[in-house]
Amino acid sequence: MRWYLVAALLTLLTSSQGILTTLSQSHGKYKYDYATVPFLAEVFKLVVSSFFLWKECQASSSAPRMTTDWKSVRLFPIPSIIYLVHNNVQFATLTYVDPSTYQIMGNLKIVTTGILFRFFLRRKLSTLQWMAIVLLTVGTTTSQVKGCGEASCDSLFSAPIQGYMFGLLSACLSALAGVYTEYLMKKNNDTLYWQNVQLYTFGAIFNMARLMMDDFRVGFENGPWWQRLLNGYTVTTWLVVLNLGSSGLLVSWLMKYADNIVKVYSTSMAMLLTMLLSIFLFSFKPTLQLFLGITICMISLHMYFAPAHMLVNLPATTKAASDTLKEIAVEPTGDS
Amino acid sequence: MRWYLVAALLTLLTSSQGILTTLSQSHGKYKYDYATVPFLAEVFKLVVSSFFLWKECQASSSAPRMTTDWKSVRLFPIPSIIYLVHNNVQFATLTYVDPSTYQIMGNLKIVTTGILFRFFLRRKLSTLQWMAIVLLTVGTTTSQVKGCGEASCDSLFSAPIQGYMFGLLSACLSALAGVYTEYLMKKNNDTLYWQNVQLYTFGAIFNMARLMMDDFRVGFENGPWWQRLLNGYTVTTWLVVLNLGSSGLLVSWLMKYADNIVKVYSTSMAMLLTMLLSIFLFSFKPTLQLFLGITICMISLHMYFAPAHMLVNLPATTKAASDTLKEIAVEPTGDS
Repeated sequence: MRWYLVAALLTLLTSSQGILTTLSQSHGKYKYDYATVPFLAEVFKLVVSSFFLWKECQASSSAPRMTTDWKSVRLFPIPSIIYLVHNNVQFATLTYVDPSTYQIMGNLKIVTTGILFRFFLRRKLSTLQWMAIVLLTVGTTTSQVKGCGEASCDSLFSAPIQGYMFGLLSACLSALAGVYTEYLMKKNNDTLYWQNVQLYTFGAIFNMARLMMDDFRVGFENGPWWQRLLNGYTVTTWLVVLNLGSSGLLVSWLMKYADNIVKVYSTSMAMLLTMLLSIFLFSFKPTLQLFLGITICMISLHMYFAPAHMLVNLPATTKAASDTLKEIAVEPTGDS
Repeated sequence: MRWYLVAALLTLLTSSQGILTTLSQSHGKYKYDYATVPFLAEVFKLVVSSFFLWKECQASSSAPRMTTDWKSVRLFPIPSIIYLVHNNVQFATLTYVDPSTYQIMGNLKIVTTGILFRFFLRRKLSTLQWMAIVLLTVGTTTSQVKGCGEASCDSLFSAPIQGYMFGLLSACLSALAGVYTEYLMKKNNDTLYWQNVQLYTFGAIFNMARLMMDDFRVGFENGPWWQRLLNGYTVTTWLVVLNLGSSGLLVSWLMKYADNIVKVYSTSMAMLLTMLLSIFLFSFKPTLQLFLGITICMISLHMYFAPAHMLVNLPATTKAASDTLKEIAVEPTGDS
């Protein structure tokens, strides 16, 4: 499977995630506990990956590559731990800044992902690719600029400095989780399904712990989480779970066979697609900044992924030089 | 003189033009007839160019190149005629759209300049340069997106279709005037000052005609224009005239020794610089979209003008190939 097809599918799923989540609300409110969704999605991913791992063990003549050494397995809870910390930093940020500033700052994770990708995974990026990454950040931000007449006007960038520090920390943690997962998936040739099983086992455990903590926080006034796990679930809620689970599986695939930058493009494009679809589905008012943002992100996409020679139309001299080289290279063969 | 120094100077002058014009108003109104400013600027440019042409005739051993053939001279009023038509289309546009939509649509001239530059002057642009031109348009537009709380909200893009057609026509005419001037300046090796003298003579005449037409329109109720030419002029008004004249001279220079795209970048950057300076000078409220716009335009500038090899870090194979080529090229010399 080509990475760009997987990336396109991830864009579609991530985009439908936003729309399904909105559709799963009734009168703008969740009738179910939203924290149960990621938990069930982790369970779904674990079941699917376990099934494929089992099939792989059955089918292939040689057993699939699996490192079961504790020194390797102990690395797999780390992304979950980062996400847990990230989650709490998110809460801390939101005590200082309003949700729209928070959303705007969220775009910083594109740049932080680029930086960690470069320094943690030691992947070189060209100047053009760096500019593309900055443009993607600017493009998604542009699409989110509040138009005139919209609420929460003055609040933008009037938050205390701590809010911005937490926002920056949040962007770094989000990037770190992604980059670390990529490192895990690529560090050896273990089969993807075994890596997934480890990742999602810890994912399920940590999500369960979160549900438990929520219960403790409110003093079990609604009873333990497992008793009200599926309360208020509708078909749409189940679709939200399946959608989140499936997009998670695609992200894993991309982390192993493509990279974080591909994922970042995929989810940024999904955000824009969601906004575009919301115009038709939820009769959102289209804004000029949305179309500007889409244009910027499309150009950024092309800058990052198009082959260099397509972009710069290499000067005639270089072309002539390589032609000459070919002729020279042919001659000795003729002589011998 | 290097073109980028001239371009930078043009940016500074164009930017101060906006600020000086604002400073020349008292209580938000002009105490002088603004239509006299471009006329006097044309006269200033004509005087300066005539002086330099005269000096050139005196100084150099050989007379400077001057084509005085009517077949050549008759082309020089054309830019003035285009500007005159453009001016009227501008008025027509403003009867359909509000000033902020008009300002936003004005950015289209960047793209139309690129298109005419390509097809009228037959100058090839790389994919990257096309993307840079679109980004410059998007960037300047982003900086102008009305923030929340600002006036004229719903009016944006709710104008009748004629408004947009006139806006598009206006962008085409503006680009045509620029591209045609570049064609005039480059079509032969005539000295710049002689070309300027022709251009500005017609410029002064057409501006005078405009003042005359304004007088006719109001039935000479304020008396003929020459009697009230300098009414209400202050030192700042004179600075506005000198500034406009000087930037016009720089544009001529760029048209001959650089090109329209350089000019378009220069004036777009000036627009952003003016907005940035207005924050400090006129305590404008800085907006997020201004900083996004500046970032986009800076990236666009770098994309358009930076040498390709700096942007794409040509792959190792190409580099190796050219290294090999050098070695091969050296060898025969050694043999002979």
